[in-house]
Parts: sequence; structure tokens; C-alpha cells
Amino acid sequence: MVLGNEVYDKVFRSIDVNADKFVEVLEEAVAIVSISAEPEHRDDCVKMSHWAKAKLESIGATAELVDAGIQHLHDGTQLPLPPIVFAQLGKDPKKKTLLVYGHLDVQPAKKEDGWNTDPFVLTEIDGKLFGRGSTDDKGPVIGWIHAIRTLQENGIDLPINMKFVFECMEEAGSEGLDEALHNRKDFLQDVDFTCISDNYWLGKKKPCLTYGLRGISYFFVKVECAKQDLHSGCYGGSIHEALPDLLWVLSQLTNIDGTINIEGLNEMVAPVTDDEKEIYPKIDFCIKEYQNDLGAHGLTRKTKEEILMRRWRFPSLSLHGVEGAFDGPGSKTVIPAKVTGKFSIRTVPNMTPEKVDEVVVAHLNKLWATRGSPNRFEVIPQHAGRVWLSDPNHPNFQAGAKAMKRVFDVEPDLTREGGSIPVTLSFQELTGKNVMLLPIGACDDMAHSQNEKINRRNYIEGTKVLAAYLLELGEFQ
Amino acid sequence: MVLGNEVYDKVFRSIDVNADKFVEVLEEAVAIVSISAEPEHRDDCVKMSHWAKAKLESIGATAELVDAGIQHLHDGTQLPLPPIVFAQLGKDPKKKTLLVYGHLDVQPAKKEDGWNTDPFVLTEIDGKLFGRGSTDDKGPVIGWIHAIRTLQENGIDLPINMKFVFECMEEAGSEGLDEALHNRKDFLQDVDFTCISDNYWLGKKKPCLTYGLRGISYFFVKVECAKQDLHSGCYGGSIHEALPDLLWVLSQLTNIDGTINIEGLNEMVAPVTDDEKEIYPKIDFCIKEYQNDLGAHGLTRKTKEEILMRRWRFPSLSLHGVEGAFDGPGSKTVIPAKVTGKFSIRTVPNMTPEKVDEVVVAHLNKLWATRGSPNRFEVIPQHAGRVWLSDPNHPNFQAGAKAMKRVFDVEPDLTREGGSIPVTLSFQELTGKNVMLLPIGACDDMAHSQNEKINRRNYIEGTKVLAAYLLELGEFQ
Ligand SMILES: [Zn+2]
Ligand SMILES: [Zn+2]
Ligand SMILES: [Zn+2]
Ligand SMILES: [Zn+2]
Repeated sequence: MVLGNEVYDKVFRSIDVNADKFVEVLEEAVAIVSISAEPEHRDDCVKMSHWAKAKLESIGATAELVDAGIQHLHDGTQLPLPPIVFAQLGKDPKKKTLLVYGHLDVQPAKKEDGWNTDPFVLTEIDGKLFGRGSTDDKGPVIGWIHAIRTLQENGIDLPINMKFVFECMEEAGSEGLDEALHNRKDFLQDVDFTCISDNYWLGKKKPCLTYGLRGISYFFVKVECAKQDLHSGCYGGSIHEALPDLLWVLSQLTNIDGTINIEGLNEMVAPVTDDEKEIYPKIDFCIKEYQNDLGAHGLTRKTKEEILMRRWRFPSLSLHGVEGAFDGPGSKTVIPAKVTGKFSIRTVPNMTPEKVDEVVVAHLNKLWATRGSPNRFEVIPQHAGRVWLSDPNHPNFQAGAKAMKRVFDVEPDLTREGGSIPVTLSFQELTGKNVMLLPIGACDDMAHSQNEKINRRNYIEGTKVLAAYLLELGEFQ
Repeated sequence: MVLGNEVYDKVFRSIDVNADKFVEVLEEAVAIVSISAEPEHRDDCVKMSHWAKAKLESIGATAELVDAGIQHLHDGTQLPLPPIVFAQLGKDPKKKTLLVYGHLDVQPAKKEDGWNTDPFVLTEIDGKLFGRGSTDDKGPVIGWIHAIRTLQENGIDLPINMKFVFECMEEAGSEGLDEALHNRKDFLQDVDFTCISDNYWLGKKKPCLTYGLRGISYFFVKVECAKQDLHSGCYGGSIHEALPDLLWVLSQLTNIDGTINIEGLNEMVAPVTDDEKEIYPKIDFCIKEYQNDLGAHGLTRKTKEEILMRRWRFPSLSLHGVEGAFDGPGSKTVIPAKVTGKFSIRTVPNMTPEKVDEVVVAHLNKLWATRGSPNRFEVIPQHAGRVWLSDPNHPNFQAGAKAMKRVFDVEPDLTREGGSIPVTLSFQELTGKNVMLLPIGACDDMAHSQNEKINRRNYIEGTKVLAAYLLELGEFQ
């Protein structure tokens, strides 16, 4: 079944007609203060799960609230986790099945943090819909509902079966999700593709599809020089201090151009393929604008292609800080006795956490041996996240690209991202099938920050993209 | 007038007889919670000043409470400073005048911080008098009172005039003291010697007199790479990060043996004289015990003389920490945008704050130029304290040494200290006369820490030393 352009046009017109109603629904969702990291808003998170279940039921889905277990807080109290919404729409064995993931919870927000408007009252200013969760991730979640409803209202049969997993703890580490997914493996068994709309365009104008994320390996480096902190007046000059040792070690891990100076690490990186090389020049990205937006004093490379590759497909090492040293304002004359440096490496194919830990520990111990310090030294690898890389030539991505082309009249950029979105890898591993990240928000949406927004255009055109994607996906049956 | 040994013996016996009474007076003083850093105890500080005034009057001194002005707290509130006790005992123009300084306030203390006893109830266990302020500095202050009272009760005329300055804000930076002293320059005009008992023996058994203190020059080093903190996943690898730059600079300032690697700095240090060289071998100090007590993994030198010189008469540079980076427990994946490193240099004759600032700023800027980083870099010298060096051959020190010899039957060590006691230099500059530090507490008294104590022996024998010192000082008229 190949649908004519007129079907898409009808759908898009219908979405335009209903745009104000769609904004009202987003307003309703933003008003529910579903801050997952704040126990006092747990009831709002539960309310949000119920709200989403009702919305899914309103489009004919069979939805259930799956218990996510108990959260153990640091202060010893226990709190039930908000339930996870599992839903299903269509069971036609002749159709393929798409899994959609989204999250219903939001980052904390207070007006006094620097918001220009009440973060929980969706407020439109100059085409921008300001509100916590507007872009991360309530806007995209509601986009799916409206996309499906529009198809239904226009009498268009959904060409695929759909499954939904909407959780309400993503901003607090997705606690309970992996266990719930493992307990319900049957639910994921017949999934053919997964689509997640929970990231952002690379820029403000051109859409993109995302096929890769870097992993992360995090390390603690401990140096101890004495059994307790010492006064620098009384003891300075007589003992080997821990901090100069630690800072020296940390300062040796990268070169001035940002490349990593750890033996055996760069050797693990998959070579850049010819296919890959073709992707980068087409991408809409301006390094001058990038540098200006960050207020960065310098970039490590001179070309667009190199900078994007540094962010997406080469490993990087960042120093985060030191625990145990003086960190306040003012002047304190302490010799810290036990200091812990923190750094992480963003990893790329074919680096594995095990191999990265191995070469990092070996290199740092070797480096330490050359220091000639009598102090105690230890490198402690922390929890690591694996890299994710999808196949951007898969029909799932082709459907996404066609949908974007229909709405924006441009081929989307194929992007990777430097950070991690852990659920992406979870779904790829649990389903064994292609996962695509399809962002609808712009790069300047300020997710997690003050004045989070989604552009009205992104929200509405994004809904069109989701609807078109569902139809395009049907073409690959 | 040369007093016979029998006079000293009579005085010492009298002190022994009254020892329990003297402990009771210390108990009374410790019970007043004169924590100067805690505004809620300001009334107790005022009470403590009144208590000391009454004690001084009980030995016949003319005492007054000098207003110290107003304290401006960070939260904007204003609080009167506790009054400073100025007192005078004897005005005989034929006698020399000794100035005694001490402080009546104490460091904060709470039982739950790890005290084995109530910090404000003086408690004797195995010959140790535990209590906040027991050794710092209520014990020594009361020692002066009891020394004078004992002479009076034994019908011995004080061979010198005495002046007293007892403040109650020392542990909070002596706020108000300098201004009060400047306003009352007349009070200090006829002072011939100053004695301060507010430091500690080098060890646990052998007394000492202290003739030098290092100064301090404190520096902030700022590096900025972007206008705000960045996510290491999104941006790591593409921008020049601030923290590797800062840590590299800080790691270049010292050599592995602790010597300072700043051009022009070591050249300022006064050469070790032959006189000085003779002092060190006699000093009772065991580097093994020192290292064990600190739990230090290594010392920078191998001999007693070298280690003492590193602490007292050579400069040292200590790194204290970094402000603006991640400093908490756990793992955070931030690229800090603006980081400030903190380090200080303990200074010795003939280093001056002005010259130290000059060479440090010049050296760091030169070092930075070799780094080749596009980031913003700035070195900001902070408030500095000058070195203090007294003449240990002065009659003031000879009187102190003789007094100690009479009580402990040993020549005291002549020591310097690595830290600063700012009032020492103030009194030397204001009087233009010799200042001596005469400690009575032991090195393990734990001033400022949990379970502060003074040994009963140090308290009582210390009172004898103070009495003998007053008599010995009379011999130099
Ligand atoms: Zn999100
Ligand atoms: Zn988020
Ligand atoms: Zn003190
Ligand atoms: Zn003190």
C-alpha cells in the first residue's frame, strides 16, 4: 500500500487546524508537577502516569500501570516508585510493531531559579511555549498521541501495531524501569522497531535523526598523604602532600589539543569509514556559532567535520573535580590528607568498559610509578555506560527521514551525540532490533535548565513528523 | 637584687599546695562558653571579659573593658564585639614593664563532634584536664593570674610593672583588636618586653621558647574556558577545558622533594647562619615519631635538622584546593567553566609579601604562556601575613630560659614555628621591643580539635614557669 501525497496533506492540515487544542493538552500536562527527583512530588508523578494512561486509552490503546517497585531514599525512608505505563494499540499479526518510549517526569524547577514565567504554567511568548517538560519530554510524548488521533480522525488505518512504554522516573535515573522491562520481556518480544523522541536537533532549524551515542567510563583517583588534614603552617614543607601528586597525575592525561594521553586507548577506536566521512560535510553546523553560544575561549579543532567527530565519534577525557580538598570561597590553609580526583572518558566503538578500565588503571599506575612519591595511590573505576550505535541505513531511519522530508522539505542530518541516553541501549538490547532517536525539539530548548521551551513550530511540525513516520513505516511491511 | 633559690622554692611549693584550687579556677573559666565565632555565644564572650577583668582586679590590677566596636555579619546583622580587657599592675618608674597578651575566647566545640567528655566541663582523666580552652588559651591566661597571686601571697614584691591585653575574638580573626591597640598607643608606649603564652611545646616533655614564625602569602589562580559549566558528554573533546590547564599550572609549582619551583623565590631566603646551625642539633625532636603521629606516608627530608628547617626557616608551598569544580561525593559529568586554584606560600626572612607577589605573578604568567591554551588565566594575590623573627639572645628570652631551667631542670629548646600568630608581629611593631612566645602546653594538646586538654603537670609547672619568669625578668633591671 503506497499512500498518495494527498493523504499526508490531509493529515498535516488536520494537525494545523487542531494546533491550539494540542497546545492546550500540553498546558494540561505541564501543570502536573511531576518532578521525579523530589519525593514531595511523588503523588504528582503517579497522577501523571494515570493522565498518560487515560490519554492512551482515549486513542483506543490497551494500557496498564506496571508497578515499578520501591525506592529507598538516602534518609532511610521508602517510597513507592510511580507506575510505568505499558500500552498496546493494534495486534494485527500481518503488521509490524513499533515500540515508542517516552518519559512523563521532569527536572526540578522553581520560578526563583531564574525563570521568566511560572515553570508549571505553559506560557507562549513569540512562538515559544515556555514550561518545564514542554520539550523534555511531555511535548514529544503528547505528539505521539496527537499524531495517532489525527490519523484516526481522518479515517486512516494505522499501518503498524504500536506499543508504548512511558515511565515517570527518567530524570532520576529510570529507577525501576530495567527491572520492569525484564519482568515483561513478552511485551517487547514482537517489537520490530523502536523510536524514541527525547533528544534535540543539532541546530535550531534543520531536523536530524540520531544513530549513535557515546558511552562513559568514570574514574576516581585517590591519593593519601596522612591520616588527617594538616595545617600548612605547621607541616608545610616537611611532608609529601597528596594534592600536588594528584593534580600532576590528572594533568598528564590529555594533551593540549584535547587528545587522550593514555597508552592503548586510542588504538581501540574504530577507524572512520568512507560511508561515515560522507555524512559529516552535509551536516548543518557552524563552529563559530557553536563557540559563541558556549562562550568558549577555544575549540580543539578548526573544521566543522573535525569538531563534530571530536564530540561524537572520538573519545574525550574530561576532568570534573577533586573531592576532599578545600573547595569553598575564601582562603583556607589546609593540607588535605585524602583527595580524590574525578575524571571520565566518553567512549566510542569499539571501546568496551572492561578494556577501557584495564588500560586506564594500567596507565595510571605506570604514570604513578614515575612520580616517585611515597604517598598511597589508587585508581577506582566507577560504573560505566556502553556506547550505542544504530544503523542509519535501516528502514526505520529511512521512514524517519522521509517523514522529515515531507514536513520540512529537507533531508534530515544524520547525527550522533556525545552524551548517553541509557534507555536507548536497553531497548536495543532487549528487542534486538533497530532503535532510532527522532528529536522534534531544537538545540536551544534548554532542557534541564531555566526557561525550558519548545517552539510552537517544533511542537506542531513535530507532531506531523510523527504522524508521517507512522505512515512511512507502514510502507516497509 | 638577686633572689636566692629559696625564694623560688617557696613560690613553687606554694603553687603545688594550691594546685587543686588553680584547677578549680580553670574549671570555672572553661564553663563559660566563650565561642567567638558563634554569635549566639556573644553574651558568653562578654561574660568572659568581665570574668577576666574581675580576676585581674583581684590581684590588684587596674582593669578596664575597652570597646572593640561593631561586627558586621555576613547576613547583614550587626553585633557588638566583646570588650577587650586592658589592665595594669604597678607603675613604678624604676621598673621595666612587661606586656602580657592572651585570649579568652575558644574554638567551637560540641560533644557530638567526637568529644569523650562535655567540652565545657573540665574533666580530669589520667592527669589530663580535658575541656575547650583548657590549653588554648584559658589555661595560660589563668596561669599568669595565679603566678602573680602566689608571689603576692608569699610577700614577694613584683620586680616589674605589668600590662595585660586579654581579648575575646582571637579565634575569629582578632576583629577589633588592631584598632583598639592603635587607639591606645599610649598604653603600649612604655612596654619593654612582651610575652605571649599561646602556642605549644615542640614535643610532649621538653619545654621551648619560640622566636620565629613564618609568614604567609596566599594566591588564587583563575582559569576560565566558557561562560557556563558544560556537559562533558555533549561538549567533551571539542573545547579547551579549564581544569586540565589549572591543574597543570598548579602541579608545576613544587618539586617532588617539596622545594618551590618559582623563579626568584628561593633567592630571597636569608642564608642559614652559623649561630642558627647550632640551635638545631640540640632540639629534642624525633622525625620517626613525628611521621608516625601524622600518619604521613613520607617526609621530604631525612634528618631532624633538615625537617625542622623545612618547617620553620625555609618557605613551603601548599596546594589547598579548587573552587568551582565538582567537589562532592559521587560522579558528576560536568566540565567546570570557571575554576580557581588556591595555594599559599609560607614565607621566611627576608621574603616580603610585595616581592613574593611580584615573582609569583611573573612566574605563573610565564608558565601560562608556555601552555599554549586559549583560555583566560589570572593570578590574584590575596592578603598576606609577614614573617616574625625575634632575637632569642635578648634578656627577655634569657629570663624565660632561666625560668624553665628552674622548673624543668633543662634548657628549653629554641624553636620557630611554621604557622602565623598575627598578634605577635602586631605587638612587636607597636612596642618596637622584644616579643617572646613562651608556651606551657604540650604538642598533643589538640587545640582547635576534639578532646582539647592541658596536662595537669603542664598547667601547674607552667604556672611556676610564669612566676619564675617574672622574677628572672626583674634581674635585668
Ligand atoms: Zn528527556
Ligand atoms: Zn531530561
Ligand atoms: Zn590561641
Ligand atoms: Zn586557637
